Amino acid sequence: MKRVFFLAIGLSMVTSIMAQEKKLFTLDDLLPGGRTYFQHSVPEQAYYEWWGDELVKLDIQSVTRQNGDTLFTLNDINAILKAQGSSTASYLLTAEFPYADRSIVNVETGRGHALVDWVAKSVVQTWELPLDAENESFDNTSRCVAYTVNHNLKVLKSDGNVVDVSKDGCLDLVYGESVHRNEFGIDHGTFWSPSGKLLAFYKMDQSMVTTYPQVDISPRSAELVPDKYPMAGETSHKVTVGVFDIATGRIIYLDAGDPTDRYFTNIAWSPDDQFIYMIELNRDQNHAQLVRYNATTGKKDAVLFDEKNDKYVEPMHPIQFLPWDSNKFIYQTRKDGYLHIYLYDTTGKELKQLTKGTFEVINVLGFNTKDKTIIYTSNECNPLQQNSYAVDMKGKRTLLDEGSGWHTPRLSKSGGMLLDIWSSPEVCKKFDLRTIGKKMSTRNLLTSAEPWDAYQVPEMKVGTIKAADGVTDLYYRLVLPTNFDPTKKYPTVVYVYGGPHAHDVDASRHWGVRGWDIWMAQKGYVMFCLDNRGSENRGLAFEQATFRQLGVEEMKDQIKGVEFLKSLPYVDANRLGVHGWSFGGFMTTSLMTTYPDVFKVGVAGGPVIDWKYYEVMYGERYMDTPQTNPDGYQRTSLLNKAQNLKGKLLIIYGGNDDTCVPQHTLSFIRACIDADTYPDLFTYPGDGHNMMGTDRIHLHNKITQYFEDYLK
Amino acid sequence: MKRVFFLAIGLSMVTSIMAQEKKLFTLDDLLPGGRTYFQHSVPEQAYYEWWGDELVKLDIQSVTRQNGDTLFTLNDINAILKAQGSSTASYLLTAEFPYADRSIVNVETGRGHALVDWVAKSVVQTWELPLDAENESFDNTSRCVAYTVNHNLKVLKSDGNVVDVSKDGCLDLVYGESVHRNEFGIDHGTFWSPSGKLLAFYKMDQSMVTTYPQVDISPRSAELVPDKYPMAGETSHKVTVGVFDIATGRIIYLDAGDPTDRYFTNIAWSPDDQFIYMIELNRDQNHAQLVRYNATTGKKDAVLFDEKNDKYVEPMHPIQFLPWDSNKFIYQTRKDGYLHIYLYDTTGKELKQLTKGTFEVINVLGFNTKDKTIIYTSNECNPLQQNSYAVDMKGKRTLLDEGSGWHTPRLSKSGGMLLDIWSSPEVCKKFDLRTIGKKMSTRNLLTSAEPWDAYQVPEMKVGTIKAADGVTDLYYRLVLPTNFDPTKKYPTVVYVYGGPHAHDVDASRHWGVRGWDIWMAQKGYVMFCLDNRGSENRGLAFEQATFRQLGVEEMKDQIKGVEFLKSLPYVDANRLGVHGWSFGGFMTTSLMTTYPDVFKVGVAGGPVIDWKYYEVMYGERYMDTPQTNPDGYQRTSLLNKAQNLKGKLLIIYGGNDDTCVPQHTLSFIRACIDADTYPDLFTYPGDGHNMMGTDRIHLHNKITQYFEDYLK
Repeated sequence: MKRVFFLAIGLSMVTSIMAQEKKLFTLDDLLPGGRTYFQHSVPEQAYYEWWGDELVKLDIQSVTRQNGDTLFTLNDINAILKAQGSSTASYLLTAEFPYADRSIVNVETGRGHALVDWVAKSVVQTWELPLDAENESFDNTSRCVAYTVNHNLKVLKSDGNVVDVSKDGCLDLVYGESVHRNEFGIDHGTFWSPSGKLLAFYKMDQSMVTTYPQVDISPRSAELVPDKYPMAGETSHKVTVGVFDIATGRIIYLDAGDPTDRYFTNIAWSPDDQFIYMIELNRDQNHAQLVRYNATTGKKDAVLFDEKNDKYVEPMHPIQFLPWDSNKFIYQTRKDGYLHIYLYDTTGKELKQLTKGTFEVINVLGFNTKDKTIIYTSNECNPLQQNSYAVDMKGKRTLLDEGSGWHTPRLSKSGGMLLDIWSSPEVCKKFDLRTIGKKMSTRNLLTSAEPWDAYQVPEMKVGTIKAADGVTDLYYRLVLPTNFDPTKKYPTVVYVYGGPHAHDVDASRHWGVRGWDIWMAQKGYVMFCLDNRGSENRGLAFEQATFRQLGVEEMKDQIKGVEFLKSLPYVDANRLGVHGWSFGGFMTTSLMTTYPDVFKVGVAGGPVIDWKYYEVMYGERYMDTPQTNPDGYQRTSLLNKAQNLKGKLLIIYGGNDDTCVPQHTLSFIRACIDADTYPDLFTYPGDGHNMMGTDRIHLHNKITQYFEDYLK
Repeated sequence: MKRVFFLAIGLSMVTSIMAQEKKLFTLDDLLPGGRTYFQHSVPEQAYYEWWGDELVKLDIQSVTRQNGDTLFTLNDINAILKAQGSSTASYLLTAEFPYADRSIVNVETGRGHALVDWVAKSVVQTWELPLDAENESFDNTSRCVAYTVNHNLKVLKSDGNVVDVSKDGCLDLVYGESVHRNEFGIDHGTFWSPSGKLLAFYKMDQSMVTTYPQVDISPRSAELVPDKYPMAGETSHKVTVGVFDIATGRIIYLDAGDPTDRYFTNIAWSPDDQFIYMIELNRDQNHAQLVRYNATTGKKDAVLFDEKNDKYVEPMHPIQFLPWDSNKFIYQTRKDGYLHIYLYDTTGKELKQLTKGTFEVINVLGFNTKDKTIIYTSNECNPLQQNSYAVDMKGKRTLLDEGSGWHTPRLSKSGGMLLDIWSSPEVCKKFDLRTIGKKMSTRNLLTSAEPWDAYQVPEMKVGTIKAADGVTDLYYRLVLPTNFDPTKKYPTVVYVYGGPHAHDVDASRHWGVRGWDIWMAQKGYVMFCLDNRGSENRGLAFEQATFRQLGVEEMKDQIKGVEFLKSLPYVDANRLGVHGWSFGGFMTTSLMTTYPDVFKVGVAGGPVIDWKYYEVMYGERYMDTPQTNPDGYQRTSLLNKAQNLKGKLLIIYGGNDDTCVPQHTLSFIRACIDADTYPDLFTYPGDGHNMMGTDRIHLHNKITQYFEDYLK
């Protein structure tokens, strides 16, 4: 497979010229959770919502049309609500317009919602869920609300009655929630049929899964918080899919056979409510099947096709039916090496590969029904970019924006218009309204001023180096110290993530720089970041280079980054540091213990220490099981490298991290004690995998201080 | 109450003159757990055992009489054992002589024991307990062995049969184990009657006690280890006392009434097996009663006397009957302000206060039946010393040693001889055999050479300063840096414990110096340690000065110590550190947050952070309950002082500390995060309240490095 990388922008210097009279940042200015973050770092925001094909602007007090007319005000809505004795709304910023052709708005009212017809001045429906309700899912058509309470699934019907879909829910038996630990693109557990008459839902039996004992220290006496956490190679949970009939109350379960060691993913309804499509994987994750079930009987109707891969397949996107042809759907797969859109018919026959090339489809936004095109984003322009495209049924692609930057657009109902929210290294933030079709046009709604213009912003550079394989281009971002003096030598910190499904360098505002990079640059550090092989958006081979040996190739690439750094005259090779979180914490600890003479100081957050402590779905995809890949687990386990630690390494973890459980960090600390090596440790009691709010500021002060103490 | 302090020795300089050719210590040389500790720090040892009134010397291969004759060899014993087909012994170092008048030795045989008659060349009895047996207690008379397995009490009879005293034992219901968390002098849970026919035992119902969730990270997936831990002011356990009749298998329970919020302590048998004496306290611990029960019926026979105190009473010693008069017993109490021995009769009448003065009885060793004296140790010579005394029934005290140093003697069967094991600042270690009586004599068995003579030992000084009350003398120990230069200014570290039932400075070898003090002195630190008010052996008022406000007066005294340090020209007042563990961790954290400008660096180990997280028995004795002393708990809680932290503070805790549970440290860390202050943290996963073995070396390297990084 040949692969040509584009490198258009990015090798030149960007960002503003330093001016001594400009302000210096505080850490609070730079990080989410900081008291001054929104004032000093976040570009001007605007809130828009599609009402069918009309884009309306949301404010606290009013909703405005594109022509400037006020559609309605908060007072209008509250007057209607009050007249019916209903709870009122406090703002319109979260208003939604569920019906393209009706003057109905969905507003938040305290703990509930109201559907208000602002023309008829009537309240269509209101609802308020119990305080402990979770996983709320409103269906426009039936106006029913599915939700869960204590692992049971309930449906609030439009007549106000509540139906218990399940009653035996508990920690061991979970209804209506996301399953398989949010892998395979799963992020919720209920799926309304197109008519809203049927509700598909996940049911997960995790009674056989080992309980990880989390401890809550906040009560009078510390309390156990049991968490079901299936570790790689261990017994996993069993998932089934039910279908609840709102009218009859009847529940059937899809007849998918023994769910042991199987993944039921990417649930999709046929447009006519008759069938449920599901992508089923074996535990080894190297064999997927698209399977169709009769939604009334639960019987298996057909296996449409299989997909296999020597390493793994990873279906992330449910099939989507063409709005103009209910016998055809699109399916996204990397079977040619890059994530692309394929057209299939309902017999399972592949009709056409619609997108093709050495780029990746990033997001399918929907369909333009008039032109019969699919609207999506991809990095076809440049691996660092995300741009909008339309592709027609013949595979003809049309770029929908200027071809620069990082775009996160939202498509109108019929697919004829895009609200394009985007930035680039040169563009702080833009809201553009674009019409799609033969006569494309763009109207700028808002161009946000750069809030950092008042500050001394350090110089940022992006470029490529060759990966350790000698051929692959890898993208790096380099941030020079504020008030950079090229004759000096600076301490240098590598920030690393390095794992799949993520990247750090892109062509968005400031090249996606992290606020902490700026903070460190201001303190006199060179900051470096490299997206190694294994990271996202670069194709299957790029990602799968790490298979069964997570960290090994990634580290080789990072060491290439270090070699590049050492070639820079202003980098002090004797003062190199490294920091990363999660997979990046694993990378940091791996680098400190595998290349102990390279980095003087490291800070690892919430690290994986041994993949056997990580969960089944993610862990086994990349590493297989400890039983089938003992060598790979042994070679990548940092428990076996504790004795190599020479530099200063601070490990930080959330006291209740339920992603990388505390056993990772604590086992490493134990291994270091046994090996007579000396890591440092900190924890954020009560926090999970990441620190939020003011804890995030504290965390970054802590990280910074460690480099200041030992690297500077 | 008047109190005169003695200060005889200690103000002068001691220890050897430095010689440059002498060796430097490694940390392994200085600390228990170090690989070279036994060779380089522990004086020559000898192992002796009383066989009635004859002292015999134990070696691996033989047991020797005082006249040099071999009593028997390991080969002799093993030949006898082999002839009977029994397991053999590997050494004789732990041999015991249970019968003064019989040629029977109790030897260890692998996992079991054997009673061997070396004259008759016969095996009297052998036994081997299950691998999971705990709390083994052998009775010489009946030759039965009481032990526990999984919280159940069992008795192995001399005929080899095992009787289950209980079968329903579990974490909630505990038989035959120590209760009340080892407070009130309790350290075991079974009590053989003098005849060995009856076995008194504790039974503890702790089903109502909150479970503290300890987590074991060593299994494949971390596991919960539930621990019953009653916190101050919370529901406590209920204890009863049973009596098991070996012959009949019958069990009765003492009819002590509702055990809720009561402590049953200091169990003692009457010499005739008829009665059990017990000291009973209320939960408030300010009212004790000596109560007698009929051991056959369990009925309460008499309340002999009451003891009350405005603050607390703390009975630590069971009554002991005079061997020559079974109607009289001795009782130890501090009711006159110092711990003294009183003579009572079995009607509960106080016959005489036998010891008296401004000193404390430290250990009652037993009785001299010929002279009818009680043999004990006290600090009558000097508050820093422990010396042996005899007191007769008229209260006449006789010093049994030379009146210097720290003595830990062992008394012969009839009380006529002492094996006196002792040291002093000038005496490394001596084993002296002393006869007691009108013709006292001493024969030196062994004088150990000082193993530190080969090393550069820093200069150590002891002296007094006035406590914060302006009148009380407090003892300090000062260790000067190795190769001290009085013209320099040195960083200085205060080591502190400061809690009750402990002292740091005494007149034992090297003034009781800690190995880590020597290590730090060698690294160029002045080391200081002060036994503040609240510590042991100085009388009740001295200890109770801290009542209901632990830490407050103790800190005032430590600040007096700092003032003294600042008066020394070679102490750098800008580089003061503090370190302590447990209560000393509480003191360290308290000092760092109460006097934030005094100490630049602190290392607190296993600290109490808020007394509400400490256990009922110890916590409420000194602090009452959070309900009855809310102000005291608030004022001493370090959660309320987290915002004051300015210096560098490292907190270290055992990951499974079940004394100061991790909730202490983690709650403080959380409070500091919330207050935007920056402590450091380390943990020893799997360790309890203290680090042992090589973990102890790692720990002290860690502590040292912290001072090296931030204080030097």
